[in-house]
Amino acid sequence: MLHFDSDYMEGAHPKIIERLVRTNPEQTPGYGTDEYCESAKEKIKAACGIPDGEVYFLVGGTQTNATVIDSLLPPYGGVAAAYTGHITVHEAGAVEASGHKVIALPDRDGKLTPQTLKDYLVSFHSDPSKDHMVYPGMVYISHPTEKGTLYTSDELAGLKEICNEYDIPLYLDGARLGYALVTEGTDITLPFIAENTDVFYIGGTKVGALFGEAVVVPRKGILKHFTTMIKRHGGLLAKGRLIGIQFDTLFTDNLYFEISKHALKMASILEQGFISKGYKMMYGAPSNQKFVLMDNETIEKLREKATFEFWEKYDNDRTVVRFVTSWATREEDVRQLIDLL
Amino acid sequence: MLHFDSDYMEGAHPKIIERLVRTNPEQTPGYGTDEYCESAKEKIKAACGIPDGEVYFLVGGTQTNATVIDSLLPPYGGVAAAYTGHITVHEAGAVEASGHKVIALPDRDGKLTPQTLKDYLVSFHSDPSKDHMVYPGMVYISHPTEKGTLYTSDELAGLKEICNEYDIPLYLDGARLGYALVTEGTDITLPFIAENTDVFYIGGTKVGALFGEAVVVPRKGILKHFTTMIKRHGGLLAKGRLIGIQFDTLFTDNLYFEISKHALKMASILEQGFISKGYKMMYGAPSNQKFVLMDNETIEKLREKATFEFWEKYDNDRTVVRFVTSWATREEDVRQLIDLL
Amino acid sequence: MLHFDSDYMEGAHPKIIERLVRTNPEQTPGYGTDEYCESAKEKIKAACGIPDGEVYFLVGGTQTNATVIDSLLPPYGGVAAAYTGHITVHEAGAVEASGHKVIALPDRDGKLTPQTLKDYLVSFHSDPSKDHMVYPGMVYISHPTEKGTLYTSDELAGLKEICNEYDIPLYLDGARLGYALVTEGTDITLPFIAENTDVFYIGGTKVGALFGEAVVVPRKGILKHFTTMIKRHGGLLAKGRLIGIQFDTLFTDNLYFEISKHALKMASILEQGFISKGYKMMYGAPSNQKFVLMDNETIEKLREKATFEFWEKYDNDRTVVRFVTSWATREEDVRQLIDLL
Amino acid sequence: MLHFDSDYMEGAHPKIIERLVRTNPEQTPGYGTDEYCESAKEKIKAACGIPDGEVYFLVGGTQTNATVIDSLLPPYGGVAAAYTGHITVHEAGAVEASGHKVIALPDRDGKLTPQTLKDYLVSFHSDPSKDHMVYPGMVYISHPTEKGTLYTSDELAGLKEICNEYDIPLYLDGARLGYALVTEGTDITLPFIAENTDVFYIGGTKVGALFGEAVVVPRKGILKHFTTMIKRHGGLLAKGRLIGIQFDTLFTDNLYFEISKHALKMASILEQGFISKGYKMMYGAPSNQKFVLMDNETIEKLREKATFEFWEKYDNDRTVVRFVTSWATREEDVRQLIDLL
Repeated sequence: MLHFDSDYMEGAHPKIIERLVRTNPEQTPGYGTDEYCESAKEKIKAACGIPDGEVYFLVGGTQTNATVIDSLLPPYGGVAAAYTGHITVHEAGAVEASGHKVIALPDRDGKLTPQTLKDYLVSFHSDPSKDHMVYPGMVYISHPTEKGTLYTSDELAGLKEICNEYDIPLYLDGARLGYALVTEGTDITLPFIAENTDVFYIGGTKVGALFGEAVVVPRKGILKHFTTMIKRHGGLLAKGRLIGIQFDTLFTDNLYFEISKHALKMASILEQGFISKGYKMMYGAPSNQKFVLMDNETIEKLREKATFEFWEKYDNDRTVVRFVTSWATREEDVRQLIDLL
Repeated sequence: MLHFDSDYMEGAHPKIIERLVRTNPEQTPGYGTDEYCESAKEKIKAACGIPDGEVYFLVGGTQTNATVIDSLLPPYGGVAAAYTGHITVHEAGAVEASGHKVIALPDRDGKLTPQTLKDYLVSFHSDPSKDHMVYPGMVYISHPTEKGTLYTSDELAGLKEICNEYDIPLYLDGARLGYALVTEGTDITLPFIAENTDVFYIGGTKVGALFGEAVVVPRKGILKHFTTMIKRHGGLLAKGRLIGIQFDTLFTDNLYFEISKHALKMASILEQGFISKGYKMMYGAPSNQKFVLMDNETIEKLREKATFEFWEKYDNDRTVVRFVTSWATREEDVRQLIDLL
Repeated sequence: MLHFDSDYMEGAHPKIIERLVRTNPEQTPGYGTDEYCESAKEKIKAACGIPDGEVYFLVGGTQTNATVIDSLLPPYGGVAAAYTGHITVHEAGAVEASGHKVIALPDRDGKLTPQTLKDYLVSFHSDPSKDHMVYPGMVYISHPTEKGTLYTSDELAGLKEICNEYDIPLYLDGARLGYALVTEGTDITLPFIAENTDVFYIGGTKVGALFGEAVVVPRKGILKHFTTMIKRHGGLLAKGRLIGIQFDTLFTDNLYFEISKHALKMASILEQGFISKGYKMMYGAPSNQKFVLMDNETIEKLREKATFEFWEKYDNDRTVVRFVTSWATREEDVRQLIDLL
Repeated sequence: MLHFDSDYMEGAHPKIIERLVRTNPEQTPGYGTDEYCESAKEKIKAACGIPDGEVYFLVGGTQTNATVIDSLLPPYGGVAAAYTGHITVHEAGAVEASGHKVIALPDRDGKLTPQTLKDYLVSFHSDPSKDHMVYPGMVYISHPTEKGTLYTSDELAGLKEICNEYDIPLYLDGARLGYALVTEGTDITLPFIAENTDVFYIGGTKVGALFGEAVVVPRKGILKHFTTMIKRHGGLLAKGRLIGIQFDTLFTDNLYFEISKHALKMASILEQGFISKGYKMMYGAPSNQKFVLMDNETIEKLREKATFEFWEKYDNDRTVVRFVTSWATREEDVRQLIDLL
């Protein structure tokens, strides 16, 4: 069976495993106060060009989103996000669990466009009954989006400009950030993100680590008492060094980017395969997630040999399905999949 | 420097590490739906004598407590716990974050006694203004307690009987359960806990694992939609197998108990050392946490060579401090510490 | 200036005022435990045909919705409601404040149709990742809806049937219920609502009272410890009798229905006036709220002589505005308004 | 039967009733945007000596406490209060419902002393694990306290000084503030409270109004988007003018103080009666609540003729009970009660 369901199906990159094994007997203080975490934070700050910034480590993505959003919002505030946003749909109400509404806005292929955001904010602030409505207290985007698309630097800068105008923070969910940063044609870099967001996170779980996400705060101070917030949200790992060691490894010798490039190479071969076999690619997703329109019969037959995800119903006969490559995808598996088409 | 701060200072037991390395390249479905989790659940259910029970895996202790308590309580309910309980003091308000009050009750050396619980419940239910008060919807205890003490089987059965009388669940936090179960003189076993609680968790983080806690539900059905609850609380690990593999290893060939015994042996040597040097041991803590009364000068000097935790001020000159042994404690370190006294 | 903004612009019906004055010096026990509340509850239960039901009193509508919804939902559950629902838009996140998502579904002129609900529930329950999504734990509708439309008995029974199939409660917000019940052509009565919902509330604030809403539970037991829930949500009035006296008066000699009929008569005259002057009525709203399409110039001019509410932008030149009549509307004011058109 | 249970047993002062009747037919805009509210706010600001301050109106006390506390606290913060505080015990978890812990501290006859507060804050801020604990984000006191005692100006200033030192707001619950302000010997005035707190509320429900509490913000800006917060907490009355009219009346011609004086006169007669009959008065409560030590037999007999509240068990034979006078208490009832002793 070939597996293309997601990018969290294997363990960690061998270099990470090797280092976890080597450091296993060491004794370190708990809860991320160890020197591995310190070292990893310095490397991440350097990669982002923010010597005065802050970095925090959490275990997983939903936890990270819920904790950051709860920290950024006032009690009367909600978070504006795309209809298809991960926090809108697939986090089991973790944002609402802290009392906050996800203000869902229309998306264009997964992206919240500056125009949509602006229109909504103008409309809200001119509504005579706005005091009876949830205040838009921040904006959430993901990069890549849920539909595998990428923001351009103009779009990201545009969103940030609007957020500045309304004095609300912009938060970027980078669960798959590595793959976005090495996609051909992108003009968005870590320093650019650091400049154009207030908080973002660099995903480890889906990009080579066993688990772990690095929250980056370019201009420090916006996340108050954040260690207490992480603890309160159940995200403070006792053996915090485990995340420090993993990110320290990922941000040594460009490993985070190198392994992401592999995923993109595999995704490209896969896409070419689909196209050459006459399939229609959806959403224009340039990164490591590929969305394909398939008739239901083909899907059923393919499921005998490969795993992949249902995305959405297209019409009565056809469905959009998703194939994901990762740092661990083997080229032979991609080739075999293409042969099955 | 010698380290006796806590039982989470090292990585994982070598057998766990070895297995994580071996399984690293494998591909498994996410979020705990893999076969390692299945196997671990079966072994835990067997060890608890509950073939029809349920087991769930979460990453850490605070997260586990918050998720279980949120699942067990109605919105108008609070959780009764000792003043010194971990949820009362050291979880940064994670229980309150879900809207629930911790109803703090006096403890005796860390334990919530049946008499104290009964007195409180009788008083609550006879209070004419009880409708204006938080309803006691469940009871939380930890075993060992925060003061290293252990419930007797009579005490645990007594608490359960009272909970049955008032039709509220009893939940046991077993962050250090392994150490409790192998303490000399205890008559509490896993099957006894399964019989006398409604939910409990078997701690991995402090007993040989990198991280991970196993929530056990002896009589199934009480935790509704619990996977969604775990997700909502940010505790659903994408690479869920990591916890499955660790618990499967811990519950193979009695590893969980064997490594716990080592900690107890080290604790016993340490305690003997303290006593032989004339120190007063506090709380009658029989397990792997030892509380010692020390004058502040001695503490200061000892801190140059060893790390350990402040527990509480005793008087102006003396302080109670805590030393913890674990599955990983080396006998030579214990001997060296005693020599320093 | 003529006022048609809403149905809460005057005080209370003279019979209520007269009785509040008369009972003012009396001493009664607090928090709704007085005999006026008892009497009012009995009259409401009789009017609904539910001798074994339950009735509770709260102060206002948002508070009532938030309290009932928090009582009905499990922590992993959300409430399905129309996009235009009051809880979705105009309650400042009161539902989310208790940790619950409002699952917004498309509406047809303010109504959540059985088909829309069914489609959503089928889709949710067949989604492979439903464990990662907010569980639809109940359904909220309002009658009349936010767009002044009314459910038919078939529609309401259809919604209830679907809720039964999925074993989730149906809750009806009756802020303006009096006006709905006396609208010409409706086949929905209080007993019919009692039969076809699990909880509903009879609005007092907008139908003759100073304030106050009566929560009705046709089949008792579904709202557990509800007095504590009301207290927790800040809705337990110390001088609870004030609401009891008002509802007792409203449900004596059919007052609630009689005064509602007056509002409908006024609404009918108003609507005829609009139509005779060539205006287009919107949404087919048969009750006491009338929605009119007006060009922006006319609106501006009319605002010099009358108050009414902006509803929604129609196109660049035209806007939908709302005019509301009530138990207190004077026919001369309606005639004057028509003359201004 | 004579009633001394509480100070919310009658309706409103006749002047309020008279004015509610007179204004009943008027049409005003909703949600507190009317001119009666404006006028009342101006009068309250004048009485407090804070021309630049802010005033908001809510319906009841628990709602007011929950809303203010939710507005003042960051998500990681809790509210420090006396063990016996109303929010600690008798508000059904309304504070926890917004995710916040009530940090209960020992009281002296109902009062949180500056020393107790200081000791706690010093201890918290020097605790090495404070990041794992709920941050003390504000302080709550009530005046009079739950035990009928009053702060001195030195005590209140002392608390404020400590709050300033730690940069956290001080909030005063004045449910019975009128009675406190006219108690013989007190040196605390409205302007003094305005100077020495960050937010406080002036109780209407227990001091002559049908309902209603006035939140006062001496230095504006600390309660952000507070109208939305009130709405979110279900406390925004549609016919907001009802509270405006009541407070406008209470703050015209010193009515609030005059009617409070009556209650104090009645309380004094009652206390003299108890003392002359040999009863022991408890807690040194100088205001309108009187706590009396009685043997259980006497209590039982007295209950046949009078209502009053159980306060706390004293020993097996004796109980502390509470008698409350109000603006409405009739001297003849007090005399009759004394005759019964």
